[in-house]
Amino acid sequence: MFPKYDVIVVGAGHAGCEAAHAAATMGSKVLLITMNLQTIAQMSCNPAMGGVAKGQIVREIDALGGMSGIISDETMIQFRMLNRSKGPAMWSPRCQSDRQKFAELWRYKLEQNPNVDFWQEMVTGLITEDGAAVGVRTSLGLEIKASSIILTNGTFLNGLIHIGEKQFGGGRAGESSSIGITADLVKLGFQSGRMKTGTPPRVDQRSINFQKMEEQLGDEHPERFSYTDTNITTDQKSCWITFTNLAVHEELKKGFDKSPMFNGRIQGLGPRYCPSVEDKINRFADKDSHQIFLEPEGRDTVEMYVNGFSTSLPEDIQYKALQKIPGFENVKMFRPGYAIEYDFFPPTQLYSTLETQLVNNLYFAGQINGTTGYEEAGSQGLMAGINAHQKVHNKEPFVLKRNEAYIGVLIDDLTNKGTDEPYRMFTSRAEFRTLLRQDNADIRLTKKSNDIGLASNSRLEKVTLKIKSSQNLITELGKIKVEPNDVNAYLSENKSSQLREKTTLHNLLKRPELNLGNLREISPELETILLTLTPETSQQAEINIKYERYIEKEVTMAEKMNKLENLSINPDFDYSKLTSLSYEARHKLKEIKPETLGQASRISGVSPADISVLMIFLGR
Amino acid sequence: MFPKYDVIVVGAGHAGCEAAHAAATMGSKVLLITMNLQTIAQMSCNPAMGGVAKGQIVREIDALGGMSGIISDETMIQFRMLNRSKGPAMWSPRCQSDRQKFAELWRYKLEQNPNVDFWQEMVTGLITEDGAAVGVRTSLGLEIKASSIILTNGTFLNGLIHIGEKQFGGGRAGESSSIGITADLVKLGFQSGRMKTGTPPRVDQRSINFQKMEEQLGDEHPERFSYTDTNITTDQKSCWITFTNLAVHEELKKGFDKSPMFNGRIQGLGPRYCPSVEDKINRFADKDSHQIFLEPEGRDTVEMYVNGFSTSLPEDIQYKALQKIPGFENVKMFRPGYAIEYDFFPPTQLYSTLETQLVNNLYFAGQINGTTGYEEAGSQGLMAGINAHQKVHNKEPFVLKRNEAYIGVLIDDLTNKGTDEPYRMFTSRAEFRTLLRQDNADIRLTKKSNDIGLASNSRLEKVTLKIKSSQNLITELGKIKVEPNDVNAYLSENKSSQLREKTTLHNLLKRPELNLGNLREISPELETILLTLTPETSQQAEINIKYERYIEKEVTMAEKMNKLENLSINPDFDYSKLTSLSYEARHKLKEIKPETLGQASRISGVSPADISVLMIFLGR
Ligand SMILES: Cc1cc2nc3c(=O)[nH]c(=O)nc-3n(C[C@H](O)[C@H](O)[C@H](O)COP(=O)(O)OP(=O)(O)OC[C@H]3O[C@@H](n4cnc5c(N)ncnc54)[C@H](O)[C@@H]3O)c2cc1C
Ligand SMILES: Cc1cc2nc3c(=O)[nH]c(=O)nc-3n(C[C@H](O)[C@H](O)[C@H](O)COP(=O)(O)OP(=O)(O)OC[C@H]3O[C@@H](n4cnc5c(N)ncnc54)[C@H](O)[C@@H]3O)c2cc1C
Repeated sequence: MFPKYDVIVVGAGHAGCEAAHAAATMGSKVLLITMNLQTIAQMSCNPAMGGVAKGQIVREIDALGGMSGIISDETMIQFRMLNRSKGPAMWSPRCQSDRQKFAELWRYKLEQNPNVDFWQEMVTGLITEDGAAVGVRTSLGLEIKASSIILTNGTFLNGLIHIGEKQFGGGRAGESSSIGITADLVKLGFQSGRMKTGTPPRVDQRSINFQKMEEQLGDEHPERFSYTDTNITTDQKSCWITFTNLAVHEELKKGFDKSPMFNGRIQGLGPRYCPSVEDKINRFADKDSHQIFLEPEGRDTVEMYVNGFSTSLPEDIQYKALQKIPGFENVKMFRPGYAIEYDFFPPTQLYSTLETQLVNNLYFAGQINGTTGYEEAGSQGLMAGINAHQKVHNKEPFVLKRNEAYIGVLIDDLTNKGTDEPYRMFTSRAEFRTLLRQDNADIRLTKKSNDIGLASNSRLEKVTLKIKSSQNLITELGKIKVEPNDVNAYLSENKSSQLREKTTLHNLLKRPELNLGNLREISPELETILLTLTPETSQQAEINIKYERYIEKEVTMAEKMNKLENLSINPDFDYSKLTSLSYEARHKLKEIKPETLGQASRISGVSPADISVLMIFLGR
Repeated sequence: MFPKYDVIVVGAGHAGCEAAHAAATMGSKVLLITMNLQTIAQMSCNPAMGGVAKGQIVREIDALGGMSGIISDETMIQFRMLNRSKGPAMWSPRCQSDRQKFAELWRYKLEQNPNVDFWQEMVTGLITEDGAAVGVRTSLGLEIKASSIILTNGTFLNGLIHIGEKQFGGGRAGESSSIGITADLVKLGFQSGRMKTGTPPRVDQRSINFQKMEEQLGDEHPERFSYTDTNITTDQKSCWITFTNLAVHEELKKGFDKSPMFNGRIQGLGPRYCPSVEDKINRFADKDSHQIFLEPEGRDTVEMYVNGFSTSLPEDIQYKALQKIPGFENVKMFRPGYAIEYDFFPPTQLYSTLETQLVNNLYFAGQINGTTGYEEAGSQGLMAGINAHQKVHNKEPFVLKRNEAYIGVLIDDLTNKGTDEPYRMFTSRAEFRTLLRQDNADIRLTKKSNDIGLASNSRLEKVTLKIKSSQNLITELGKIKVEPNDVNAYLSENKSSQLREKTTLHNLLKRPELNLGNLREISPELETILLTLTPETSQQAEINIKYERYIEKEVTMAEKMNKLENLSINPDFDYSKLTSLSYEARHKLKEIKPETLGQASRISGVSPADISVLMIFLGR
């Protein structure tokens, strides 16, 4: 009934969609199996993409030829560049999405891909032969064969939804959970764990008093996630800011004895950095108030998302507490918040290609690996899709380093350190965050992706031009000199110290108080050049000059690291013989089987002393 | 947590949406509770509205101020007026809908209604007090109060899905079934039954060879369902016609031993007039071929609906049989067909307002009453919504007669005769089908609906003008005379016999071979008048003149009927005393409690002789 596929992707969430798209675009025959074709690329929680560190990931997905950026651009209803007042390493694009349109466009784009077939059903198990995955079994008893399998089951594996004292099976409110796969994998020898996440209630815009809230507009000049020429959003919708108060907290506390979080009914570990509102008032008992963002769910719907109010308290407690928030006095709820517990598989069981160590040709991507967030899921899906394609076609694995991409940091952290709580990306997780900026993801990644046949040639041409033009601009800025007499008046006016002798624009640009906008006012020559360049190009040159020192420092550090990093270790290396390693290190190294010395160095429990022992043994 | 509502509508299918919209538009405070807010107004089966008899119902819903017509108009991708070659009583509008857009627009329109609140959850039971419904209980244990409750659970009540030998709970593929309500109602004394329906597989447009099929274009001049000024569809998509053959049938027969239809696993009765393909080849063993319509599921999707191939045979049998259909040689399936069994409540337990006889203020509408089809469901929802509103506000019941609307026929059939198999509308069910045309639903119904505060004044103004102008036109046609000399040449040319003496246009129009289009060519005076009129107006006059005799006959018949019809019978009337009634009639009359003699006359088992006895007793 089915041909043999190159890749079967199980699940059409953010991970599954990127995986299917990537492998298919590279030429693999892909079957995307999902429980409900009507819910492809559903945003399970907040209707938003990007944000701090996450926005960088979307840019990276895009630079690699993934779709999340394009879909976000074409369906957003608000755009903001966060942290613009900070250094460019911190700039982070974020958008509000139209939940419905986002999902629809993903489905449309996948349907346009001639290599993607679709099948609606629940996958209940895996077919393996000689330690390799060769297919899946479905709820109807079908057996579908493929050269590789990517599991992206999200929060569905034995999903259990909690609201107050009630609990019921489900993968998301109103959708069934996925049964069978966990048991199958455990039988194959995998370790599984349990995590939890939560979502806030949704409310009726018509019942809200916006007078009592602060309006948060989109950027005046909205930008985009994609490096391609997607549409820039117009007619943006606002978000609204309000705050909880002691009265809200009092109401919430009345439900604590019935909270599945506090009475032990939920065993899975939740995201510490994305806590429920009951968690917040419990852990930060001294805070009288927490911020709430009220966000539209789409351009045309009156449903709104109460960001900051994730909760699994009983629904009447949710309601009474909401009513005490300024602007919510007459609130009507559409759906209550809830928590969900689900199975995940500790990602230390994976290689850095996201292939499992136990079963060949089996890949895990997304929330199943213990992460949280659409961006984290989408990027893993993309990498698993690429690597499944590469392996099926006997090509090199595709792995990104920690100094190359947040995606590299993410997967390196996951596969080496694992995670006890839902893992989300932060800029602080990256050692090289001046290198991993949102403005240069194309420069970092598009060529690599084009080399393996994913990012299109037009993407490559665009970034090649951007690189060349910005380098040219840097050169020009080093050549153009200005005389003290010509510019000192302007400099004083702009609170910049006067020149004693003539100097290059390059030097002037290093001054924190000056930017290219200033320089073009004092140099007609520069003005002429800039008129021929895109804003992205001149921004690139500007950042490279202004942050030259930081960038160089990180590049040097990264080079050192990578020398170690690249020292590869035979996966069959017998650590038990190396008695000079600490007991813990031996144990961990045997378990995790790092592929390189760099990875070994980041395993918790492996000390610098252990690394020295290894280096000596490896002949360094 | 909730205020007390006037009306709670359970379920947001076609029945629930129309019910909520109608009651809310009339001024009731409505809460619409549904299991998943993401699936409001999902088309469970074919992506199409209207068709023979069903198209008339959509027009009636629209004339009454319901939304199904407007939503269909704004989201259609193809329009056809069926049976245009037959008399106007048979003309039936039908459209292909964009499944996704249809559902989205319904949700949007409901959200625009300030009187509709939303709640996402499963209702699990009913709260009654003193024989009246006063609220619902939900899966979270909430109790929500209202003055009346409308149940529109569709195919969800204890829904059981069958594919070959597999069966699993579900209300639709990928959605959970609804548990609790049936048991609750049975405890209250309701009788329940079991029915089944089925749906065909969905296939991938990219795998179809359209060269081997016949293209079915939309009408060159598409029309609309609504009497309001909705958009007329442009850029229509085609459907495609192909046929099964003996090879297809052979493949299907290989699965018969595993068919849940044939081996007794499905106990519910299916729709005889909408049989599965296995049913067709089983029952019509002499037919070598059955027609298949391949229909697009939307404007932008590659998913297609295989109309005529509803089946619950094992999925591999479905696939192998499909492959033998011309054009399907390389078919790829998206989802298999399946059958679903569900609980319904024999509708003889209802009054003609759709309120239940057993429990006051409780209404049933849609598939729960044993019907099938979106149009049948939507119209019942509308009527239940109206009547719930009327009763809550101490106003008159709103009931349509058999000579006033297909909706009248539908509800009269259901509440009096009941149904053993899923009931769908046919023109043959209507005694007065020359009166119940698609072109005059507004004339028949808009005033009635405006009187009770549903259809808007602008609708009423529009139809009043249409009535007046078409009557004027009829008068004018009776006045304008033509001379033999002026028209005989034209008449011969158009194969119409020549005039001997002058005559009115009215007389000429009665000739079957002539229409208004011809007359305006021979009468400049008429041409001038017609230029000032809408096509609907002149069509109305034309039909009234051409079919005058039939219309008059039906009007007379209806008047006679209605005299009987209106003879009301006391619901507490003690039939056991009327020993001259047949035993069966006494039994049935006691059970069904007809409200009028007309209803009594249509109860199966009540003979004309019984009616005579009743008439005598009632003093006629
Ligand atoms: C209630 C809730 C709250 C959340 N809160 C947050 C939050 O606060 N912050 C945050 O960043 N993220 C949050 N998330 C997480 C975010 O939604 C996920 O990280 C992201 O959607 C994961 O993407 P994914 O592709 O891994 O899985 P999902 O988006 O969950 O998609 C999984 C897909 O797989 C399909 N599927 C599953 N099992 C099978 C099977 N056996 N056979 C076929 N198909 C199958 C499903 O139908 C679905 O299409 C929340 C999620 C939920 C459900
Ligand atoms: C598989 C299948 C095949 C079909 N085939 C045909 C066909 O060939 N021809 C044809 O004319 N018609 C067919 N139909 C029927 C057509 O879909 C229905 O007649 C029509 O949709 C009925 O409308 P409804 O409003 O009564 O119910 P539905 O459209 O079924 O809607 C019911 C709604 O109620 C909600 N709901 C149910 N229980 C609860 C609860 N306890 N609490 C809260 N919400 C609840 C559901 O979520 C849903 O929104 C088919 C239906 C199915 C499922």
